[in-house]
Amino acid sequence: MNQHQPLLDRALEVLRTREHWSPYPEDTEAYREQDAAAGERAFRGLLRLPFDLDQPGTDGVVGPAPETGGESSPYGFPLGISYPHGDPDVLLPAMRAAMAGWQAATPLERAVVCAEILARINARSHEFAHAAVHTSGHNPVMAFHAGAVHAQDRGLEAVALGLAEQTRLPAAFRWHKPLPDGSVFSLAKTFSHVPLGVSLLITGAVFPTWNGYPGLFASLVTGNAVLVKPHPRAVLPLALTVRIAREVLRETGFSPDLVCLAAERPGERLARRLALRPEVRIIDYTGNREFGDWLTGHARQAQVRVATSAVNSLLIESTADYRGMLDNLAFTLALYSGQLCTSPQNLLIPRGGIDTDEGRKSYREVVADLGAALDALLADDAGAAGVLGALYAPSVVERVDKAGAGLLGEVLHPSRAVTHPRHPGAVIRTPVVVGLDPDRPEQAATLLTEHLGPVYFAVAVDSAEAGTAWLGRAAREAGALSAGAWTTSAEVERALRETCADCGVTLSLNLSGGWYLTQSAIYSDLHGTGLNPSGNTTYGDPSFVTGRFRTVAVRRLTDTR
Amino acid sequence: MNQHQPLLDRALEVLRTREHWSPYPEDTEAYREQDAAAGERAFRGLLRLPFDLDQPGTDGVVGPAPETGGESSPYGFPLGISYPHGDPDVLLPAMRAAMAGWQAATPLERAVVCAEILARINARSHEFAHAAVHTSGHNPVMAFHAGAVHAQDRGLEAVALGLAEQTRLPAAFRWHKPLPDGSVFSLAKTFSHVPLGVSLLITGAVFPTWNGYPGLFASLVTGNAVLVKPHPRAVLPLALTVRIAREVLRETGFSPDLVCLAAERPGERLARRLALRPEVRIIDYTGNREFGDWLTGHARQAQVRVATSAVNSLLIESTADYRGMLDNLAFTLALYSGQLCTSPQNLLIPRGGIDTDEGRKSYREVVADLGAALDALLADDAGAAGVLGALYAPSVVERVDKAGAGLLGEVLHPSRAVTHPRHPGAVIRTPVVVGLDPDRPEQAATLLTEHLGPVYFAVAVDSAEAGTAWLGRAAREAGALSAGAWTTSAEVERALRETCADCGVTLSLNLSGGWYLTQSAIYSDLHGTGLNPSGNTTYGDPSFVTGRFRTVAVRRLTDTR
Repeated sequence: MNQHQPLLDRALEVLRTREHWSPYPEDTEAYREQDAAAGERAFRGLLRLPFDLDQPGTDGVVGPAPETGGESSPYGFPLGISYPHGDPDVLLPAMRAAMAGWQAATPLERAVVCAEILARINARSHEFAHAAVHTSGHNPVMAFHAGAVHAQDRGLEAVALGLAEQTRLPAAFRWHKPLPDGSVFSLAKTFSHVPLGVSLLITGAVFPTWNGYPGLFASLVTGNAVLVKPHPRAVLPLALTVRIAREVLRETGFSPDLVCLAAERPGERLARRLALRPEVRIIDYTGNREFGDWLTGHARQAQVRVATSAVNSLLIESTADYRGMLDNLAFTLALYSGQLCTSPQNLLIPRGGIDTDEGRKSYREVVADLGAALDALLADDAGAAGVLGALYAPSVVERVDKAGAGLLGEVLHPSRAVTHPRHPGAVIRTPVVVGLDPDRPEQAATLLTEHLGPVYFAVAVDSAEAGTAWLGRAAREAGALSAGAWTTSAEVERALRETCADCGVTLSLNLSGGWYLTQSAIYSDLHGTGLNPSGNTTYGDPSFVTGRFRTVAVRRLTDTR
Repeated sequence: MNQHQPLLDRALEVLRTREHWSPYPEDTEAYREQDAAAGERAFRGLLRLPFDLDQPGTDGVVGPAPETGGESSPYGFPLGISYPHGDPDVLLPAMRAAMAGWQAATPLERAVVCAEILARINARSHEFAHAAVHTSGHNPVMAFHAGAVHAQDRGLEAVALGLAEQTRLPAAFRWHKPLPDGSVFSLAKTFSHVPLGVSLLITGAVFPTWNGYPGLFASLVTGNAVLVKPHPRAVLPLALTVRIAREVLRETGFSPDLVCLAAERPGERLARRLALRPEVRIIDYTGNREFGDWLTGHARQAQVRVATSAVNSLLIESTADYRGMLDNLAFTLALYSGQLCTSPQNLLIPRGGIDTDEGRKSYREVVADLGAALDALLADDAGAAGVLGALYAPSVVERVDKAGAGLLGEVLHPSRAVTHPRHPGAVIRTPVVVGLDPDRPEQAATLLTEHLGPVYFAVAVDSAEAGTAWLGRAAREAGALSAGAWTTSAEVERALRETCADCGVTLSLNLSGGWYLTQSAIYSDLHGTGLNPSGNTTYGDPSFVTGRFRTVAVRRLTDTR
């Protein structure tokens, strides 16, 4: 098992240098050739069956039918899986009781167990990717990345951060104080780490593992038990995770009840009930602003860490690589049909046009050229289906339809429906680009409201300064996780840097080629700043881990020499 | 100015090793001979005069008369000092505006300025000690330690922790990702730190600098402005601090308005008003539980860090050094008349007596021998005045009188009034020891309630296990910062270690000689755990600093080779 220690050491080193690194290859060629087929078979083998977890307090099932809480693939078929439903009055005390042995282990022992859980998840990455495709609607590449290996990276990052924080103080040492009479007063001191209790993880529908593993592993490595309450549309990726975690915990001599699943019956409002339980001392939540605010206001017995909605903007001011910009931007907008929390929504373009290496381009020309780049990228359905994603919820479809009908503003580039070659039932749409005039109050309100999905606003602003101001305003009022810009002006860049520092948004400048605004390089980038309404946490930062455990000291007289 | 960098490096090293260290000598002999006289003259020179601070928004004065908010020395005379009163509508925007230049400095530059503030405070330690004597009622030794040099240690500890947290990420670096085609994708990345806003420091009456400097310097070094709202009884130590901080900031080219004082008019409820201001994003509070809870519940725009009341216990189970134990305990109880937040209140003693190196001692004998040790320590008034402190508030006097009148339980050792040789108006009392029976509900309620001051309860418990259980219960229900025990039993020690880990209290075992339960070795010990109702912060721990600033990144395309 200690084979994981070099991995953890390397993760800790990289978290200092912030260089590129990943222990979980994102290229499927790094995996065995038969893994892909085995992964698909494993996924198919889960369908239309009860998902066994052997948890305490099981008092019924959730699903398998959609009307009883079963999941449906956004690619057009019900999964038919049922999950055990738990009685919190049995489950939570069992989880609290499971903590004693886990707390008694060393931080390194806990970190190694967590790394083993991740290693087993990694070995089943293709299976996890299929689970991500058929719950969140990812395309296969995104599912393998964000649904599997990058989520594993996020998990190991949290494990390493937790190990670092728990090993900053010596576990035991002698303290010697010279006294005025020349003698030395000595104490034997110890520091021990105390977890807080049960950590409740409430995940969303789009990136349940990528957004869930940080909290899961940060709480687990610091000695807490973790109860996972997944979004009803995306239970499977976390049910698999919980099952693997329980297996590893049992095999390594710990209680499997340190990690449990809380599947929700329709209308049960389970997250609300669990969030107020006295055993629950930490809550990690990904989801809408409204429930995040409710948690913060009501779950006063717990630390509440939230990641909610974002209205991300980018400014197209000038570029020395017009084609590179258009290609990069088109891919960014198409990817997973804009359902990422880091997808840009507002494309701020000076009304008077922009300077490029292909000459001056008017606002209309930029939008038209972007539309052409989207058309080229998404020309045939099979290729488009590999870049876009299925729309994961009816609300996303409604949003696209509304925008496409011109109800938000003038449609500058229409969306079209894509027919998936293998899944005719999948609802897949190309991006719609709507023109908004920020001087019209109802259109200004639209651009300050999150429209998750392939709905983009081309916003004609008076100047680069005005665009920068709108970027900042959207972040401050509606929250933002990413900001982008193309500019060759040092002055515009300086103003953007200042604005993004002030409103707490990661700024990406002049991207072209193989890296996109929406991407976060784990172990290098931070995700979230806590400085705007998009959330109060930062993945990849020590503050994500500190506070999940506390330290208690004992001082004991030794000898006075 | 950079002479402070070696000091900061050493502080960071010691925070890793946790060895004994202090850059601010606690022995007055380390200071120049004339310092003591100069310090007293400087203090005398402040009396009966307005205290000038040159702050923006001054709209009147507080004091000098006690009925208009002026301070009175617990040693029996009014200080006659008046302080400027500020208009928050002017003061807070000025403080927010002052942050721009401070934020633009590097973490090391800010840390060096903070170290210079502390160096100047250190050079005036005798003056600060006099200020502590005549506000909080410290005796001269305690005033020089907790009121001056140890508070400075706490301050530098926070500066060093803040510097460490702000230098964990590289400020700027290149990130290179190998692409499948053999090329390398590169980004230039920067991380910059963003402070939260105005940090409000609300200090108490007994240790305003020791409890105040951690929050003041942790917020300042991380780029925030700090508004200091002192307890009306103990303004002077912080007014001096603010004045020195403003001097250093001005001299080093920063805005002095980064540190301001908010003196309070009687009945103004200033802390409530300031705590809800949108500019205020961090609050550090030392004081009563009730207002701490109010802050946590109402100041939702801010991070609220509180240190409130504590009911500390110790268990006297057995000892191999009965005399050493009695002497150590008597000094612990006498010191500053039990007005420390770490003073023990409940002395838990098995009803059936204890084993010692002087044979078996009954419960009554232990209490009587402790009384004799107190009498010996406090035999003459001059000597007693050097160990005890003046009672800092009428409420403390009332508490001692009530206990001494037998209203809480049987008086086992009476308190007596001490006449200070130089200050006949000082109210000084020796400890009163009251016997409590935990089986009587009203007496059990008494031992679960904080009685700050020289009121101690000798509690006859059924067994060591019962005593350990009471120690844990008091901590869990009423909060605790320290726990002590004398025991020669490995079994009892093991149970105590477990209980203290569970209820989050620092445990001190078998102390004798020159170290006391109430003491905290700065740079080595942590103060507070956040695990029980005594507070949610830990001085000396990275978690005290993380969250006071956030990090924002910029990623910029370089060249793709």
